[in-house]
Amino acid sequence: MPKRIGVVLSGCGVYDGSEIHEAVITLLALDRDGVDVVMMAPNRDQMHVVNHLNGEPVPGEKRNVLVESARIARGEVRDIATVRVDELDALVLPGGYGAAKNLCDFAVRGAECTVYPKVERLILDMHRAGKWIAALCIAPVVVMKSLTASGIKPTLTIGSDPGTAAELEKMGGKHQVEDVRGVAVDSENRVLSTPAYMLGQRISEVAEGIIRTIDELMKRLEG
Amino acid sequence: MPKRIGVVLSGCGVYDGSEIHEAVITLLALDRDGVDVVMMAPNRDQMHVVNHLNGEPVPGEKRNVLVESARIARGEVRDIATVRVDELDALVLPGGYGAAKNLCDFAVRGAECTVYPKVERLILDMHRAGKWIAALCIAPVVVMKSLTASGIKPTLTIGSDPGTAAELEKMGGKHQVEDVRGVAVDSENRVLSTPAYMLGQRISEVAEGIIRTIDELMKRLEG
Repeated sequence: MPKRIGVVLSGCGVYDGSEIHEAVITLLALDRDGVDVVMMAPNRDQMHVVNHLNGEPVPGEKRNVLVESARIARGEVRDIATVRVDELDALVLPGGYGAAKNLCDFAVRGAECTVYPKVERLILDMHRAGKWIAALCIAPVVVMKSLTASGIKPTLTIGSDPGTAAELEKMGGKHQVEDVRGVAVDSENRVLSTPAYMLGQRISEVAEGIIRTIDELMKRLEG
Repeated sequence: MPKRIGVVLSGCGVYDGSEIHEAVITLLALDRDGVDVVMMAPNRDQMHVVNHLNGEPVPGEKRNVLVESARIARGEVRDIATVRVDELDALVLPGGYGAAKNLCDFAVRGAECTVYPKVERLILDMHRAGKWIAALCIAPVVVMKSLTASGIKPTLTIGSDPGTAAELEKMGGKHQVEDVRGVAVDSENRVLSTPAYMLGQRISEVAEGIIRTIDELMKRLEG
């Protein structure tokens, strides 16, 4: 039986949604490993829309996270509210500001953020079922907040940025410094993380860290 | 000296812009080969905006091809009108309906389509300079129309769809059947093509064809 792994998208574009390279590299690595991928995203408006050419928010424009995520998913994406833990063997969260803007509000509230309830519910359900979760780039903030809010204290990496690492530790867990090719492994809490574009300058080095993370994940599912 | 290769984007999303997986796999393959990539797109409105969740056009919504392409490019994308042939060693066009809607109007006019002048100009300049062009998925229609309109008759593949192949041949060139892992090589006219998602069912098989195409391209630049 192929493994079924969920991929949580948060829009389509690094500044207001999923980081596209990270998401696609994740999908490619999982497909090469013969995984059945279940793509999902919250059915809600994005925090805002950013013009990716000039980096500025576009006043008044609205886009829906699920609808924009469908661009990366070629239409095959489900409302995360409908996904049950027993459908999945593991969960992967690619990064991009969408993780910190649309899956939670870390981008504006830091350690005091709240996670979108349907995302938090699935992360907690996965944890309680003893299933692995992998988070890339800035997405570890979503996992950290979801778990620490329930008294679980995982170890995760967002690379080496001191400010972001300090916010993660304020939530109650532990930050582990890693480079762009590194993977932080917390075997007790079954979470994996890699810095991806939090540190990466080139798509090929980001791919190395993500592929290594998916390799580590698959070893644990098959072991 | 690293090679400099242009990548022509046409928006962000398979139904109204660049096919995102094809574009990202292209960028990853080029970066792994040490290439300096120059991303570019036309600065014009998309033909339309498609909701990728339900596949329906969104009435009244407008998006700009260059601005949406910047999502794939993480902001680093130039107006194709400003790109000169002497900056580039080769050119790659990923697919997606955007190639047939925003780079030309093949999606509505078939063989009678016209290519957006700034795209046609760069393709012709590349050809006249003896530089290689690679086109993925449906993007061969853009290259075929640009070249046949000037009396050049290349051989290209869009896979095996008889209707699309017939439109290509009506333009005046030749269609070559290939499978998803195949590459059509026209050494006389220096064009390469691969079917990608015209035939691919899985991202990993699409990646095989694209990576093989980039390998064939790099061999010819280094040879």
